[in-house]
Amino acid sequence: MEFDNSTRTELSQLGEFGLIQHLSQYVEINQESTLKGIGDDAAVLDYGNLKTVISTDMLVEGVHFDLTYMPLKHLGYKSVVVNLSDIYAMNAQPRQILVSIALSSRFSLEAAEELYAGMLLACKKYNIDLVGGDTTSSHSGLVISITALGTANESDLVYRNGAKEGNLLCVSGDLGGAYMGLQVLEREKAVYKENPKLQPDLEGKDYILQRQLRPEARQDIIDLLKNIQVKPTAMIDISDGLSSEILHLCTQSNVGIELYEEKIPIDPLTYDTAREFNLDPTLCALSGGEDYELLFTVDMKDYDKIKNSLDISIIGHITNFSKGKLMVSKSGTVHEITAQGWNALLKK
Amino acid sequence: MEFDNSTRTELSQLGEFGLIQHLSQYVEINQESTLKGIGDDAAVLDYGNLKTVISTDMLVEGVHFDLTYMPLKHLGYKSVVVNLSDIYAMNAQPRQILVSIALSSRFSLEAAEELYAGMLLACKKYNIDLVGGDTTSSHSGLVISITALGTANESDLVYRNGAKEGNLLCVSGDLGGAYMGLQVLEREKAVYKENPKLQPDLEGKDYILQRQLRPEARQDIIDLLKNIQVKPTAMIDISDGLSSEILHLCTQSNVGIELYEEKIPIDPLTYDTAREFNLDPTLCALSGGEDYELLFTVDMKDYDKIKNSLDISIIGHITNFSKGKLMVSKSGTVHEITAQGWNALLKK
Repeated sequence: MEFDNSTRTELSQLGEFGLIQHLSQYVEINQESTLKGIGDDAAVLDYGNLKTVISTDMLVEGVHFDLTYMPLKHLGYKSVVVNLSDIYAMNAQPRQILVSIALSSRFSLEAAEELYAGMLLACKKYNIDLVGGDTTSSHSGLVISITALGTANESDLVYRNGAKEGNLLCVSGDLGGAYMGLQVLEREKAVYKENPKLQPDLEGKDYILQRQLRPEARQDIIDLLKNIQVKPTAMIDISDGLSSEILHLCTQSNVGIELYEEKIPIDPLTYDTAREFNLDPTLCALSGGEDYELLFTVDMKDYDKIKNSLDISIIGHITNFSKGKLMVSKSGTVHEITAQGWNALLKK
Repeated sequence: MEFDNSTRTELSQLGEFGLIQHLSQYVEINQESTLKGIGDDAAVLDYGNLKTVISTDMLVEGVHFDLTYMPLKHLGYKSVVVNLSDIYAMNAQPRQILVSIALSSRFSLEAAEELYAGMLLACKKYNIDLVGGDTTSSHSGLVISITALGTANESDLVYRNGAKEGNLLCVSGDLGGAYMGLQVLEREKAVYKENPKLQPDLEGKDYILQRQLRPEARQDIIDLLKNIQVKPTAMIDISDGLSSEILHLCTQSNVGIELYEEKIPIDPLTYDTAREFNLDPTLCALSGGEDYELLFTVDMKDYDKIKNSLDISIIGHITNFSKGKLMVSKSGTVHEITAQGWNALLKK
């Protein structure tokens, strides 16, 4: 799917129905469970005897993304991925999404196409169907609301509330990268604002920029765990930062935690860039958010199965509720874990 | 659920998680199919052997509603109802909703509670569960995005594409009222802007104001059709106006239509108010929108079953595609039906 972006077509030329019809022509159906996609009052899905898993996320311009440095195609891709990540975090398989977008007249048809192209690219990559949505206008920025549906056998589902004393705390991939990518983009935006003639200096930052602009959901981790026959006792995806998600797991499972700072996986580029910004790399991993890695707990008996998985780190263990939520620092001192998460509402 | 509105609590005092937690405490679960509601990465639903029906709608402040005259509780109620209406229009039963809202700092906790109270009132009225969502901040207005899920036996589902030549075209309730209610509210807003001391004159307009501010979804019509054993051949709900929905039905069913102007149900108050505004009452019914009535086609053999239903009007019949989409006016002249629908994108 390639769009011609050399022209600008006003959305008002098409109208709401015209826009929906235009964008719908690019939508393909991949899932057998999709009985009816776009085009009626509702989509119709057939999950047979499986359980339905459903999650929704809203992304608001100026709050969750900045179009100064976020290409629309990447934004579309990311907005789908963050929803799928929630479905994987239930140990379920995503099947369909619904997409609602509010656009102001600032956006052209070509811009809407770019956004949609990114969404459809994610649908293709993760083999899911776009089955409906709503397209409307807004007076100011762009708002994207996506609902993702998935399926699972009831016995496969993993909730946030199943962590037990003695369980190992594990995390996929590495943390803090998306946040440091954002810091680099914000810095270059500030430089550009001061002097529009200066080219942004993003050299060597590819990995963390990709973490921020084009994250992936960890379908591979869900597949891996299935292959090595490990069912986590609890699981959550990391959207708001490690400490915030750990607290969610502990609260819902009614347990305590001991987290080891030295075990938190941080990519060298994330580490070096944090230092460059005079930031504590651990704090970036704990509070940065948007990594979309999976945080989960497993029974001790699964240690041997999991210890050699290169992309999974064991970062702590579950304790009794009365022990509290603690992090053992590299120097051996013990801190209580606190978190605001990525508190969008505190921003102006 | 009653809220204390004498105080104002800033949303920034609670933060995002605090707000979600606070509002979640009012949510009750009514549906057996809700295995897991709010509180994990996704909700989990069990529909057994039924088919899943899903639809989503986005409402944007300044585009779809004006808080000058729309109380937040009514807005919450209406935003749920418009989604349920889509599920009924599939001849399915709604079961769960997910609610995402973006709020600016202009809104207090008490305002969020009012909005939520209206949504929960609709959940109670229609016996559905609120099972998840997202709450975030916005820089300007309020944005509400709701996804509704329902279930149906496959054989009960009614699509837009099943209308056949010779079928009768039927509509529930009466049309144009919601639009005339909006005209009255807009007029009084303009008067108030000129002179804030003047009280708004809404006397005698109760019915059309209710149609605009607190519409209902026609669950009763779905039940009635089941009781009299009539399965429509095609169905759609009227959100954008009669003519727009008729064109959708005809296009998807690949048929023509003959609509009789004199048969279009218009309430006397709608009629008189349209005249008061120098508007053509028929045009208000055709293009007004937001009535959330059901428009459907039935086989001729069902005529006897349907003819005595007081709340259903037979307004036309389906013709061959080649005959076109026509309205026979009261004077006997024939016009082609055209519609922009409620073209939000053409508004500034």
